Amino acid sequence: MSPSLISRAGGALSTGTQHTTGFFHGRTIDELGEQLRREELRAVDLATAALGAVDALDGELNAVVTLDREGALRAAEEADAELSGGLDRGPLHGIPVAVKDIIDVAGLRTTMGSAHFADHVSTSDAECVRRLRVAGAVIIGKTTTHEFAFGPTGDRAYNGPSRNPHDPGRMTGGSSGGSGAAVAAGMVPLALGTDTGGSVRIPASLCGVAGFKPAHGAVPTDGVFPLSRSLDHVGVLAGSTADCRLAYRVLAGLRPMPSREHGSEVSLGWIPPDLLHPTDPRITGVARAALDVGGIDVREVRPSGREGMLRAFGAIQFSEAHAVHAERIADAPQLFTDDVLTILRLAGETAGWQYVRALGERADWRAEVAELLGEVELLAMPTTCVTAPEIDQREIEVNGTPTSVRGSLIGLTRPWNLAGAPAISVPAGTVDGLPVGLQLVGRPGQEDRLFAVAARVSR
Amino acid sequence: MSPSLISRAGGALSTGTQHTTGFFHGRTIDELGEQLRREELRAVDLATAALGAVDALDGELNAVVTLDREGALRAAEEADAELSGGLDRGPLHGIPVAVKDIIDVAGLRTTMGSAHFADHVSTSDAECVRRLRVAGAVIIGKTTTHEFAFGPTGDRAYNGPSRNPHDPGRMTGGSSGGSGAAVAAGMVPLALGTDTGGSVRIPASLCGVAGFKPAHGAVPTDGVFPLSRSLDHVGVLAGSTADCRLAYRVLAGLRPMPSREHGSEVSLGWIPPDLLHPTDPRITGVARAALDVGGIDVREVRPSGREGMLRAFGAIQFSEAHAVHAERIADAPQLFTDDVLTILRLAGETAGWQYVRALGERADWRAEVAELLGEVELLAMPTTCVTAPEIDQREIEVNGTPTSVRGSLIGLTRPWNLAGAPAISVPAGTVDGLPVGLQLVGRPGQEDRLFAVAARVSR
Repeated sequence: MSPSLISRAGGALSTGTQHTTGFFHGRTIDELGEQLRREELRAVDLATAALGAVDALDGELNAVVTLDREGALRAAEEADAELSGGLDRGPLHGIPVAVKDIIDVAGLRTTMGSAHFADHVSTSDAECVRRLRVAGAVIIGKTTTHEFAFGPTGDRAYNGPSRNPHDPGRMTGGSSGGSGAAVAAGMVPLALGTDTGGSVRIPASLCGVAGFKPAHGAVPTDGVFPLSRSLDHVGVLAGSTADCRLAYRVLAGLRPMPSREHGSEVSLGWIPPDLLHPTDPRITGVARAALDVGGIDVREVRPSGREGMLRAFGAIQFSEAHAVHAERIADAPQLFTDDVLTILRLAGETAGWQYVRALGERADWRAEVAELLGEVELLAMPTTCVTAPEIDQREIEVNGTPTSVRGSLIGLTRPWNLAGAPAISVPAGTVDGLPVGLQLVGRPGQEDRLFAVAARVSR
Repeated sequence: MSPSLISRAGGALSTGTQHTTGFFHGRTIDELGEQLRREELRAVDLATAALGAVDALDGELNAVVTLDREGALRAAEEADAELSGGLDRGPLHGIPVAVKDIIDVAGLRTTMGSAHFADHVSTSDAECVRRLRVAGAVIIGKTTTHEFAFGPTGDRAYNGPSRNPHDPGRMTGGSSGGSGAAVAAGMVPLALGTDTGGSVRIPASLCGVAGFKPAHGAVPTDGVFPLSRSLDHVGVLAGSTADCRLAYRVLAGLRPMPSREHGSEVSLGWIPPDLLHPTDPRITGVARAALDVGGIDVREVRPSGREGMLRAFGAIQFSEAHAVHAERIADAPQLFTDDVLTILRLAGETAGWQYVRALGERADWRAEVAELLGEVELLAMPTTCVTAPEIDQREIEVNGTPTSVRGSLIGLTRPWNLAGAPAISVPAGTVDGLPVGLQLVGRPGQEDRLFAVAARVSR
């Protein structure tokens, strides 16, 4: 196994860039769409490139659980035929997409990253997948998910850990780890993930791509295996914020439409990350510096409700997660990994009255966030408190403080699941050669503003 | 102490009827209103009659915690002055009302039936009380509540048990026991109660008056100390269904308006009560026979979701109740009675994941009830499975089966709190000289239909 894919630049699919060998690295969906419509490329070429990239790279990265060669090529041929025949389904027409293996795709295995579902085949498409297909996207397969999406590290899965393209000895982050690795490695230009406490934004941050979690409820979760129903979101990972926006509009059932957001001055509240969780000061520095692009009026913002927010997130996520799994825990505990079984059992100890209190504390947190987002248009902070830890690492020292890897990964993302606000992670630079994500949180309904500013600060 | 107030017919306030010596027994609010407007009576006379009845009877019944002589007379004088001056606030103008001691009345003690609040004085009116005052009602005082409204027997309260006017050795039922006794004894024509699992309908049934629980959310609970927020309802107890209707319209913010419901044929589903809880067959017989008045098409209806309904009610009530009291249980357990402390501690053992499941099971039950109420206009069954047990009794034999008094009291009422449907208990007859209640459950928004049929079957 190579210590890093970063410097590897061989193979027919290579773009020769520093960070990946996959065809799609550095190519936007818009560009690909133009080439398709100019007939310089066919959808079948894109699907073939995606399948080839997986073949070439996935032995090392383990980003993909199930590759649907036949289905992908058939869908691509159909997309080509439609385009030739004058039926243009819009910006995702003919674009290869990978789908996290906790989201139903009809006819494909959906393992949920778990031995419990090792042989489970979905009989219908999740609503988000159905919308992608209607928009002409070509599903190429399923990406590695942390077991039952219950973990931010991406290294506990029935098919083994997904590995970070920037250093295969390091974790992708999770739970949408395979989607993060697949996009970062250029296997696909776009992948679906889910995000309950940061599971789209964390792998985006650790793998150096863009990852967007919509407002709660904006994209249906039908056909997505639940982790914690009231915190679950379907999100997207892509090479650019513009590609995230394209995919989001399709998933949310909005018409494709160019953004009308331009370079007007934006008011942004910077949350010192240590208010929420101890953070590597080098990461804080990189993320903060990314905002110095002009046209952004940055002020410091200090939310006060951290304690209640933490209690609420914990009680809600734990109670809802255990409710999904109670029978499996009782009947077949041996089919869980130790990590996930331990946290699921702990989750079952949350009391009903604590859940009830948590609903009130969530309402308080939402009110505080709404108030903050009344004062500034966007909130900003790093996405994670650390760069990608090593696979299997569980403890870490952050700025001299020993803490958990789990907390260091979800500490800055989970508040926005609880708030239900749209949030994006974009690459902001590197620390020790590993990607650092900047997170922006916006107002529900003003996603275009969020995407526009994210594009300006993304590096 | 007299073994029964039924046969006692002395005193200036006596109406000479069989069941009470209080002035208001057998008098409707409409009649009183007519007398007020004909100037045959003044509001001050009604307040004086209420205060006098409490003085005469409450030593035996303990229905009243706090009597507001001064406030009642002042409000009555004002009501008289307004009427004389041409300001008529509608059907409750000048009518004495008693308020359960878990509902805030500005300037009066609100004990919640608990030593924890022995000296607690409310600083503002609950919204339901405010609406009564705007409608001209005269608040005469506060009625005994089971401790924190957490019990259907009415015999655990800081001020001692309320006692049944039909036999002071027997319980009133609860938790709105004082309101039931006060109305049954003719101390007041109307009293406010709250109902989380049957706490208005149960004392109505056991004391032989009418008790109405509105649809969930139809009457605000602001200023009412919570038992279980998502199951709590403010309701009314009165001598007749027509009086319940008058009061309900005021509390729900609806205009006073004569009912347009007349004698059209009604389709009614009879639920065999033993499907829900073992029931004294004599009670079943009395309640069923009350429906044989003509114009009612009775068919048998058998809901199937009992198990999920029971789990949902238990998990929701327990979790929400413990959430209200967690600190008091930890800090000052000695201020609870053993009964309530025991159930509150048990309530704390419900798991968060069970509460989460319960929310789903509540939705299923609501769907089933909505379907039943699509097939028939009303559902009917007895209100309680037993007549008034003796004070302090906790176990009881029902139709040869040993069971709990608690279950026998709430077994037929709690399903309709979970469903959120409007429900009324009306007197249907007696067993061994003790009142039997018939319960009718209706469609939210069609309360007038419920009241009209209740009036036809009430005995």
